[in-house]
Amino acid sequence: MYSLTLQKPDGRQLILYSRRPIDPTLSAPAPGETIRANPHLRWHPLRGEWVTYASYRQGRTFMPPPEYNPLAITTDPQNPTELPAGDYDVAVFDNRFPSLTPLAHDAPPSIVDTLPATGKCEVVVFTQDPNTSLAALPLAHIDLLIQVWAERTRALGAQPDIQYVLPFENKGVEVGVTLHHPHGQIYAYPFVPPVPARMNAQERQYHERHGRSLLQDLIDAEIGSGERVLYLGEHALAWLPAWARYPYEVWVAPRRAVPYLYELPPAARQDLARALKTVLLKYDGLWQRSLPYLMAWFQAPTDGQAHPEAHLHAEFYPPYRTRDRLKFLAGTELAAGMFASDALPEDKARELQAVEVSID
Amino acid sequence: MYSLTLQKPDGRQLILYSRRPIDPTLSAPAPGETIRANPHLRWHPLRGEWVTYASYRQGRTFMPPPEYNPLAITTDPQNPTELPAGDYDVAVFDNRFPSLTPLAHDAPPSIVDTLPATGKCEVVVFTQDPNTSLAALPLAHIDLLIQVWAERTRALGAQPDIQYVLPFENKGVEVGVTLHHPHGQIYAYPFVPPVPARMNAQERQYHERHGRSLLQDLIDAEIGSGERVLYLGEHALAWLPAWARYPYEVWVAPRRAVPYLYELPPAARQDLARALKTVLLKYDGLWQRSLPYLMAWFQAPTDGQAHPEAHLHAEFYPPYRTRDRLKFLAGTELAAGMFASDALPEDKARELQAVEVSID
Repeated sequence: MYSLTLQKPDGRQLILYSRRPIDPTLSAPAPGETIRANPHLRWHPLRGEWVTYASYRQGRTFMPPPEYNPLAITTDPQNPTELPAGDYDVAVFDNRFPSLTPLAHDAPPSIVDTLPATGKCEVVVFTQDPNTSLAALPLAHIDLLIQVWAERTRALGAQPDIQYVLPFENKGVEVGVTLHHPHGQIYAYPFVPPVPARMNAQERQYHERHGRSLLQDLIDAEIGSGERVLYLGEHALAWLPAWARYPYEVWVAPRRAVPYLYELPPAARQDLARALKTVLLKYDGLWQRSLPYLMAWFQAPTDGQAHPEAHLHAEFYPPYRTRDRLKFLAGTELAAGMFASDALPEDKARELQAVEVSID
Repeated sequence: MYSLTLQKPDGRQLILYSRRPIDPTLSAPAPGETIRANPHLRWHPLRGEWVTYASYRQGRTFMPPPEYNPLAITTDPQNPTELPAGDYDVAVFDNRFPSLTPLAHDAPPSIVDTLPATGKCEVVVFTQDPNTSLAALPLAHIDLLIQVWAERTRALGAQPDIQYVLPFENKGVEVGVTLHHPHGQIYAYPFVPPVPARMNAQERQYHERHGRSLLQDLIDAEIGSGERVLYLGEHALAWLPAWARYPYEVWVAPRRAVPYLYELPPAARQDLARALKTVLLKYDGLWQRSLPYLMAWFQAPTDGQAHPEAHLHAEFYPPYRTRDRLKFLAGTELAAGMFASDALPEDKARELQAVEVSID
């Protein structure tokens, strides 16, 4: 993997990644005026969690025309986008309207505790082609993307104030995405957020008790059953977990526990790319249309500790429960935190198992 | 408050509530065939929480015509709804397709722990009028509804296997509701679900440290500031908390801590009804249209312990962040559990404070 790190006129960072050497004379454009982001955190005393507020996000003067795509390459220097023209595969840049930023300072006082919302929000542009999707990218391109996520996790996680790095993709208007150019985001948090904290606590407890990784044992049980497995390679698998909360929830993981993407051996990473592409093609094949989803990559906290208990994996949450009905999160899910599903993972696994896909 | 408890032909319970005596000869209809609900719980080992599966819910043969309203009163005995004709104000009956039911038995084995999904799911019909809303009901009717929630909390919470009772309302197609007859639900859980468990842990910790209720102190601070208060009565208030996660999130609570709805003194309950109606009218007045929301009532666990730390309150989560834009829950909210808001509660409070309402 080759990379080139650039700085935009407004100070934001842009990194280009490629399977080929990158022209070092490329420069980094930036659309519109400089945004002075200064989000802050407030403590939610009843839930015991931080909420971040970035109020400038609604009042922004930056109002692009509907056909304007800031993630396309710049073709007219008078109308710069976020990316330069040139030969590269993937790009990562600092979000122009971040919810978390190292520039945050002087949080306003409140009746609850407040802090500057430090951390970092990055945008990951998966490809220069605005009209494709992650599912359609070649395996080697997906493998490169995993390397990019890994590299960003390593770089962000190495910063002493970053405690957790979450690469994710929101895909589809049903999950609020209005920009269809294939892209994802990376949130780097100055604390371990509630869900990963909870997951890691469960993993640590299990590891202390049994000396093994919790997800490792669950994966071995899933492979042993086979009932919900969608892909089983030498090094990676994809499956609907027995404990799925969304009807078409799928997990993707290496078969052997590693805490971080950057600790994947190349063969495991390549097989993980194949598992990922298999899931994406099955999703789109299910109803012969592009299926929306939230995809998130869970790794260990980047707190400087060893994490033998942690097992890197991705979780996919598609918002549909049938071809034409959405799964809404309502009273029991949002207020109580208990998910109620009207689909058995075994039944949904059979549907997805029946979707044939081919990857060359 | 008067009530009449009936049993439906399929065994489900129906309770009618009224401000006037109820004709004891009323009988309880039931639409369609008997549903044999048998949901089960599976343990989510990574999140450390239960998920409930009620797979019969999708395969149900009960397919009413679009104009059929099961929450209307029965006018044609050949086409029974869930409710009889007669003089009463509010009705509560066992959900025909429950996610939790005392009839659950013999959970299927899995690679994770499973249990019968005991507990109870009830439907609360707010009024016989299918074309109104909670906001439009007279104050005395809303006060009666609070008494109904209180009575159901007491009755359900007294059962040894019920650990938590959550009355809630999902309102609007944006939160998945297709039946517009004003109604809510009550979930009675055989365990304390994750969010109330977390809230109660925070409250207990604070109470042990300071000898006072956490929310009581926060409410006193909110009243002291006044900046986010929407309604302040002698016994109850409504406000946008400084820690709001949704742009138009509003909380409603009695000013003095009580753990359960049924422990509210009548004057506090009546003022709470007024606070509630004020919020609902302000919501509908904001954009001169019926605002969708999730409303949930948080009480103490019904675990037989004393809960001096707990402070009953309702939380409202409207899904809109502006007049025409929804607040989607995506990567950081659903995967990490950290909410990112682009609105300050102080700004949204000013908008709602400016909406004038009158209640007689």
